Amino acid sequence: MMAFTNNNSSPWIQPESTHPQTGLVVYNTLTRSKTPFVPTNGNCVSWYGCGPTVYDAAHLGHARNYVSFDIIRRIMEDYLNYDVSMVMNITDIDDKIILRARQSFLLKQYRENATTLTEQVISDVDAAFRRFVASKLKEPVSVDADWLAFVSKTDSDKDSQRAKDDEKFPMNYKAASAAFDAITLARQQLVQGNDLQASAKALIDASEDVLALWLDALHGAEVSDKHIFRDLAAYWEKDFFSDMDALNVRRPSVLTRVSEFVPEIVEFIQRIIDNGYAYELDGSVYFDIESFDGKNGNFYAKLEPTLKGNSKLLAEGEGALGAKPSNTRSPADFALWKRSKPGEPRWDSPWGEGRPGWHIECSVMASEILGSQIDLHTGGIDLTFPHHDNEIAQSEACLGCQQWINYFMHAGHFHVSGLKMSKSLKNFTTIKDALKKNSARQIRMLFLLTKWDARLDYFEGTMDGPIALEKIFDNFFSNTNALLRDTRLRQQDSDGKRHFLEDELELQRALLDTKTQVHSALLDSFDTPKAMRALQEIVTRTNTYLQRGRANIDPQIVESVALYVTKIFRVFGLVNDGVGSRIGWGNAGLSAADGASQGPADRESVLLPVASVLSDFRDAVREIALSGGDKKALLGLCDRVRDKDLPDLGIMIGDHVDGRALVRFVDPEEIRRERAARQADEEAKQAKKEAETRAAEEKRLAKLAAGKLSPKDMFRTPEMLELYSEWKESGVPTKDKAGEELAKSKVKKLEKQWAAQEKLHNEYLKSPNNNIAARALRRVVKPQLQAEVAKREGVSIKYAKWDNGKAGVSSPLPIIETRPKAEN
Amino acid sequence: MMAFTNNNSSPWIQPESTHPQTGLVVYNTLTRSKTPFVPTNGNCVSWYGCGPTVYDAAHLGHARNYVSFDIIRRIMEDYLNYDVSMVMNITDIDDKIILRARQSFLLKQYRENATTLTEQVISDVDAAFRRFVASKLKEPVSVDADWLAFVSKTDSDKDSQRAKDDEKFPMNYKAASAAFDAITLARQQLVQGNDLQASAKALIDASEDVLALWLDALHGAEVSDKHIFRDLAAYWEKDFFSDMDALNVRRPSVLTRVSEFVPEIVEFIQRIIDNGYAYELDGSVYFDIESFDGKNGNFYAKLEPTLKGNSKLLAEGEGALGAKPSNTRSPADFALWKRSKPGEPRWDSPWGEGRPGWHIECSVMASEILGSQIDLHTGGIDLTFPHHDNEIAQSEACLGCQQWINYFMHAGHFHVSGLKMSKSLKNFTTIKDALKKNSARQIRMLFLLTKWDARLDYFEGTMDGPIALEKIFDNFFSNTNALLRDTRLRQQDSDGKRHFLEDELELQRALLDTKTQVHSALLDSFDTPKAMRALQEIVTRTNTYLQRGRANIDPQIVESVALYVTKIFRVFGLVNDGVGSRIGWGNAGLSAADGASQGPADRESVLLPVASVLSDFRDAVREIALSGGDKKALLGLCDRVRDKDLPDLGIMIGDHVDGRALVRFVDPEEIRRERAARQADEEAKQAKKEAETRAAEEKRLAKLAAGKLSPKDMFRTPEMLELYSEWKESGVPTKDKAGEELAKSKVKKLEKQWAAQEKLHNEYLKSPNNNIAARALRRVVKPQLQAEVAKREGVSIKYAKWDNGKAGVSSPLPIIETRPKAEN
Repeated sequence: MMAFTNNNSSPWIQPESTHPQTGLVVYNTLTRSKTPFVPTNGNCVSWYGCGPTVYDAAHLGHARNYVSFDIIRRIMEDYLNYDVSMVMNITDIDDKIILRARQSFLLKQYRENATTLTEQVISDVDAAFRRFVASKLKEPVSVDADWLAFVSKTDSDKDSQRAKDDEKFPMNYKAASAAFDAITLARQQLVQGNDLQASAKALIDASEDVLALWLDALHGAEVSDKHIFRDLAAYWEKDFFSDMDALNVRRPSVLTRVSEFVPEIVEFIQRIIDNGYAYELDGSVYFDIESFDGKNGNFYAKLEPTLKGNSKLLAEGEGALGAKPSNTRSPADFALWKRSKPGEPRWDSPWGEGRPGWHIECSVMASEILGSQIDLHTGGIDLTFPHHDNEIAQSEACLGCQQWINYFMHAGHFHVSGLKMSKSLKNFTTIKDALKKNSARQIRMLFLLTKWDARLDYFEGTMDGPIALEKIFDNFFSNTNALLRDTRLRQQDSDGKRHFLEDELELQRALLDTKTQVHSALLDSFDTPKAMRALQEIVTRTNTYLQRGRANIDPQIVESVALYVTKIFRVFGLVNDGVGSRIGWGNAGLSAADGASQGPADRESVLLPVASVLSDFRDAVREIALSGGDKKALLGLCDRVRDKDLPDLGIMIGDHVDGRALVRFVDPEEIRRERAARQADEEAKQAKKEAETRAAEEKRLAKLAAGKLSPKDMFRTPEMLELYSEWKESGVPTKDKAGEELAKSKVKKLEKQWAAQEKLHNEYLKSPNNNIAARALRRVVKPQLQAEVAKREGVSIKYAKWDNGKAGVSSPLPIIETRPKAEN
Repeated sequence: MMAFTNNNSSPWIQPESTHPQTGLVVYNTLTRSKTPFVPTNGNCVSWYGCGPTVYDAAHLGHARNYVSFDIIRRIMEDYLNYDVSMVMNITDIDDKIILRARQSFLLKQYRENATTLTEQVISDVDAAFRRFVASKLKEPVSVDADWLAFVSKTDSDKDSQRAKDDEKFPMNYKAASAAFDAITLARQQLVQGNDLQASAKALIDASEDVLALWLDALHGAEVSDKHIFRDLAAYWEKDFFSDMDALNVRRPSVLTRVSEFVPEIVEFIQRIIDNGYAYELDGSVYFDIESFDGKNGNFYAKLEPTLKGNSKLLAEGEGALGAKPSNTRSPADFALWKRSKPGEPRWDSPWGEGRPGWHIECSVMASEILGSQIDLHTGGIDLTFPHHDNEIAQSEACLGCQQWINYFMHAGHFHVSGLKMSKSLKNFTTIKDALKKNSARQIRMLFLLTKWDARLDYFEGTMDGPIALEKIFDNFFSNTNALLRDTRLRQQDSDGKRHFLEDELELQRALLDTKTQVHSALLDSFDTPKAMRALQEIVTRTNTYLQRGRANIDPQIVESVALYVTKIFRVFGLVNDGVGSRIGWGNAGLSAADGASQGPADRESVLLPVASVLSDFRDAVREIALSGGDKKALLGLCDRVRDKDLPDLGIMIGDHVDGRALVRFVDPEEIRRERAARQADEEAKQAKKEAETRAAEEKRLAKLAAGKLSPKDMFRTPEMLELYSEWKESGVPTKDKAGEELAKSKVKKLEKQWAAQEKLHNEYLKSPNNNIAARALRRVVKPQLQAEVAKREGVSIKYAKWDNGKAGVSSPLPIIETRPKAEN
């Protein structure tokens, strides 16, 4: 067990593990030195990273922090192959959120009421202005003249003495100035009476900063709807992740929100009180630094021992709404739980309704998800004191451990003109604005070219380096791809000539060297600038090799270099892998639609089929149009594209009410299956319909067959001759076989049968072309047999036409027009 | 330094390194045990893998070998992050290639000559048949009756005693049988005289195997064109890599071909001779086992010491064309260099024209590219003896090292019905045929589910397991993706409710366990079946969790599981990454066309824009068609799609001669730039044309202006009054200012001027509507001023129409029709 001691003599214990180690060394803020990185649970790394307080748009300073740690995470996960569990919090309960939400709400309300310029509006803004100057510029301004005098003696320039004393002075001066000018203008406009609605809007727009503060002072305490706070946080959280997605930053493994952990926070605080390291005071709870620091092996302010008593930083840490009572046990004691004042969200606790302090959330959520021993904690360098120091103290006070976090890594400052880029200084460029000027890759390249823990100064030409470097790699990639395409086209790789000679061996050795350099650089506390230099060098070297001309070079060694550079760039997050391949089998693309091939699917192979359909469609439309524009043909074409060509590619377009079609993507296999099912269905329906038609026809033919026999002959059939011996002219029997007269009732019955048969027979005679002879003939395919049957049935036949059947239903029989030979 | 000893007491020395190790342990054929894997050069791994002998299509047995080592390579490169340099050879000089190339060539030639069935053809095949039976079935068959007797007493079944003694017996029996039947049939056909061309073809087709052997025996030695050998090898090499690509097998870092290393092979052999371990014999060179084995710390047959004297294996190793002379120093001595007989390719050497033995190539190429100390050598298990043992002996004999290869890994057998799948047994399924039935992913899954060094028996239901398992993961991926889409759609992740509770913590712990299990399994000699089981278990567990229903689950933990499974599957090569992203910035997709966004590019986002264009186009065509099919509108539409919509997406379609358009993909930015340049060009041309038109008009107007003055007035202008005092009626002066008569020559000169002016004036009067008044008016925009100018110029004006100019060229001036007031 190795123990380090930092300047304040709090000892740091080097973690140990029986698991093989990667050789990674990290700059650890806890030791202020590079220490071997040893995770405590085999290959797993538990990591807690401080997330954003969500009340406004994220800026480049945030980008620097999150992209830098994303690079480190990717190196750990994808290069060093640690199994990383990364927890990040969203601070959604916070003084800044409360203030911003209340002010936005009150300002919106005020705007809705102040739709025209009145004396009242002007006097409101004037009051807000006076209050703002007094509180923010520390200047007692009571009349207009005072302000003008102040302006005349004050250099508003940021270099003035005041600006040097207070970095927020230029921003506040600007806000006050804008409000003053707007008030002056509004007074003139009110006198002139011109467009008072627009004037009111202009006045409020220009005075938003001063008005918001004034309105909150007057009415902040009346805001009680908790959705106002929640909605603001949810909105900016979503906005934050949309920025992170655009920057290709991996999402955390687990995301926690303070608002979802309040019961656990209360419990955690209670345990600190129980352990004797915190106390309640007037509904709030404070951490008792005196009872903790230096006692029982505890140390306070392990990260920044020299800042321990810094009252300015401590006050900032307590938040804008958190003015601490003067009777805390020590002036450095900080709030774990704050009693909620009116206009603040509130939760139940043993100490009354309140809300968590800022620092406690991280202690609770980190240990709740990752346990009481965490490998790595990260955040921006400005969070070291008091936030992270308080977090450590809280956790060690609650959990009774001596080294809650083994490694603390802090991303370096991001400065603009010597000042930290921050929302409170209004000197920021939002990520969205930055992405309008530069690609996410260029921005990431900038961070890769700076050590993650070094200060980064952002100025006019900052992006020139990354852009130029991107171009160098860009050219190398496209040259290599062109070379490989060309080689494969000419099948040069199998031409039987030897290409791997001394120059190639040398380049291969250089590539091995590069790999070793990159590996060492990344193990050396993620020294990405050094790794990028090594990559640039091997590319330069390969370019020199390429200048020998295509005939003399070995494409494989060039490919090896390009593949290696791409591999490291993929680790660095510079390569687009596409969300489509994040989970599952990857961008199967359309080429895999046949189910068998698992081949490559790049942009071209995915697009080509659709583009080809489109192109073919266009060709066809063009041809039709050139030959006169046949309406039916055009529409047939449109239907085929919708019903066949696109569905085969997994694309559905549906006709919509407004005439424009909507495109949907589905699994081509699914469509094929559906189409097959639909077709089977269609065929079954068709078959059923045909069967029904046939059955009806059979029935009709049976009826006709029954009518074939004339009533005159019906009682003279061979069977009847066994029964009767004499008949009327109509054919109705009068005597039985023995010559006996039939009973009258019997004759009557037979006459009834006769009448029924006559009716049937008449129907039979009337039915045109349809008779049972046809039916018999239909069952006979050979012409000679048909002739025989026709003769037997007493009909003549005529071959009219062949019925080829409906699509998909074959019917090989001829339709034969038959006519009965003669009546009787 | 640790030393192992295998059964033959050749010691194995455990490599050492100061570089941190991964903990990987591999089954090493050199020790017949699992040994810690320690590469000698830091993080770099040098690897030589035996590649194919290219003379036929690759089969599933090859797939098993190459896919298994591809999985191992991916684990080493992408999971354990070694920097792997993998060299693979292509054996393109070999007895099998020579034989196959010669036989194919001779057979083709024979077919071309034997286009009809003749006594000669039948007697050729009969001769071939007799030769085949005698040499392959060891049966002295001289007349038909002999064969029939043989058939009657032989069970052709593969279970017969003969089949047990000779595994190739069933195959040879089948070939002979087929030839015999074909000959019998051909004799009948010749008598009948029916379609003798088809009969000849049928006879040759059925007798290919026996004919090829006979033809080669007769004419093989006459084949001398070396392209016949080279072309066959090149063809099957290309075919091999197309199979490997289809199986998603990574290409080697360096590919070497024997034919490209002959000088190095000669040099290498010379060094072995110089070291006293080889000798020349009749133009060939043999390795001298007696002088090597057990001398100077050398050991022969380190891998298979018990097979050392196996003459059958040794003979196989020498190749079908390599009958060894009986006077080698030891019967086990093997050829390093073979004197080329007629009909064999040949290269110069100190020992005369010859070609390399089989084993020497690997020794030379491996050490040529990777040096004299190689970390890893791989190949199929059937190559251990004599191939790899001879390779080791050669290299150690040449380089003077004791452990040329530190780790030897052999892929297990791939068996069908108890026999090795092989070309020589004709019991193989080609990779192409296999891919028609199963996807590359399913085949790879099969190999992942078997330990790489275990025997794999392939039978009817072998693929059922992999297919069922794929389905399980398939469902899991699509369920997870649906869940995440749904969550993001409903913005559930920021609903302010807590989702990460005890069940989630438990699932997270299970995931950590899985990661640890997979990690251990992969470190344990790449135990992929164990890793797959662990992945299947976590998926089952997650599915159970998912059954709680969407409202109660935390999508993030499910996403974590799916991301991890995907990560490992990507390592295993189961995920499609697409060739497009192999080198460079990846699948930028169309969404990145705007240059700023580096956002996700899945199949949908890539396809959507094209599909939308197509769909919109279709809508428009439909609308036009419905309203009667306006030809001009249809064509305009087609042009817009080609010239604007598709180019914006980076797609170019060009009209081609046959009316069908070809689709090309280009950089959308490039197109935009080109279009801008073309437009600028167009505008410049237009501007130039206009300037020229204007200049011509100016010139014409100037001319007309000169003609405005009537010749009558030309000498009476104020300036002229200073010169002259009397004029003719025509206006030509007669006297000067002082009243003096003008000289006749002077008058003549003035009359000439007068005549010229009269001509100009007449032109002026004739020019319709065009006069300088119009020009003056054109420069005046305000109507009141125009009126004034018209008055001054003595013309009336008429506002005809406004010229709106050509597209892109603005012309704000009115065209004014002007008429001169009156003729003088």
